[in-house]
Amino acid sequence: MNQSQLFDQYVIYEYPLNERVRTYLRLEHLCHQLRPHEPVSERNYPQYFSALFAIIELCERSDVRTDLQKDLDRRRQQLVAWQRHPEANQEQIEVMAAQVERALTTLQPMSRVGSNLKQDRLLSSIRQRFAMPGGTCNFDLPQLHYWLHLPQSMRDQNTQAWWNEFKILIKGLELELAMIRGRARFQEVVAAHGLLQESTEPLSLLRLKVPHTLPAYPVVSGHKQRFNIRFLHECPQAGRASYEEDVTFQLARCS
Amino acid sequence: MNQSQLFDQYVIYEYPLNERVRTYLRLEHLCHQLRPHEPVSERNYPQYFSALFAIIELCERSDVRTDLQKDLDRRRQQLVAWQRHPEANQEQIEVMAAQVERALTTLQPMSRVGSNLKQDRLLSSIRQRFAMPGGTCNFDLPQLHYWLHLPQSMRDQNTQAWWNEFKILIKGLELELAMIRGRARFQEVVAAHGLLQESTEPLSLLRLKVPHTLPAYPVVSGHKQRFNIRFLHECPQAGRASYEEDVTFQLARCS
Repeated sequence: MNQSQLFDQYVIYEYPLNERVRTYLRLEHLCHQLRPHEPVSERNYPQYFSALFAIIELCERSDVRTDLQKDLDRRRQQLVAWQRHPEANQEQIEVMAAQVERALTTLQPMSRVGSNLKQDRLLSSIRQRFAMPGGTCNFDLPQLHYWLHLPQSMRDQNTQAWWNEFKILIKGLELELAMIRGRARFQEVVAAHGLLQESTEPLSLLRLKVPHTLPAYPVVSGHKQRFNIRFLHECPQAGRASYEEDVTFQLARCS
Repeated sequence: MNQSQLFDQYVIYEYPLNERVRTYLRLEHLCHQLRPHEPVSERNYPQYFSALFAIIELCERSDVRTDLQKDLDRRRQQLVAWQRHPEANQEQIEVMAAQVERALTTLQPMSRVGSNLKQDRLLSSIRQRFAMPGGTCNFDLPQLHYWLHLPQSMRDQNTQAWWNEFKILIKGLELELAMIRGRARFQEVVAAHGLLQESTEPLSLLRLKVPHTLPAYPVVSGHKQRFNIRFLHECPQAGRASYEEDVTFQLARCS
């Protein structure tokens, strides 16, 4: 069975159990929407700018860089501790330690993420309008319409400069997320009558692999030491409703 | 010179001079972003749903259908008056009259546009989150994540049904906008020192064809009997600034 068949059989849902991981997942998700390496044109600019402004807003709201530095620093200490373990895979630990070291070194000299974009004339003149429904017509934002008709290479220069503001942070949090995701294997569990409740050691992320054919989706709630997973389905008569069958799925509890 | 070369030489800016045309232009613009005939997937869903929700909101805010019916009814009367004119191109008038008649007939039986979508479970459960930065992660909206992993044909069925709610309205307003745009030819004008002010007979739309090479964009203000067009450029030192050179461009004053 190849990779794409495997992917086709499952839908992966993730649920963060603390605020930091929640913010990292949001930023990762927004970067997928941003597609920083694709040219921005009349075709895709609404999605591009919405994602960019959301990234800026999240970075203004919380000091993601400092959080990430603390997290990566903790990883570094963990890796040192593991290295002392005689049965540890030294080679793998060394690779990871080097990645963490590199991420920390590049994060260190960064000023507050996104602060340089405050001076950007185009971004600051169009940002407010992106929150209004249909507020990005050419009569609302002639400067954007003008920008969208510049040669592509000039737009590429701008988008490259904007992306440079975030690139290091995003690479760092992708590394942290990869390590969180790598900390647990999927295990088969059963949600009896569509419900699974667990009290647990402190966790930061739940990952669910749900069979593609299941006519229901999981709704997760909880915090780091306790969570509920309830399956719901769309019921044509009554809107959303609990899915009452037993559900066998796979769960990774990542600390 | 072919069409694409012509297009490359100019940037067209439009500015509505009354509220109705402003709303029509917004809806037309949102439909370009919606791309109702393209499959919706993980790749483009943020832009799709943002546009869809903006269309719904605009239709909730003002009774676009009634406005459009009145406008098209006025067009019908104009066409009848023109038909009496001996030099009129009877054939062309007949084609237009048939289009207007068809649009009015299909608009007549419509209930308030978008009202059927209020019952749509998926749309109503995800709409609020689309206003929040990064609020559409799979942990925020597992039902959307589930929907995005259904077979494409099932999503196509949904998007087709949603589009059917608006299709007739949008076709009608595209006709009205085409007729407004057709009511005036472009004429060469000069904005002395980057500024053009005019008092005029009542107009509903200004259209500007600005040479692609001009390092400035027009900012228009005004209402149906008076307008200002001022050219601005991005000045690296001082942010936005008036463009002080004379600007030769083309202007269509559409009534």
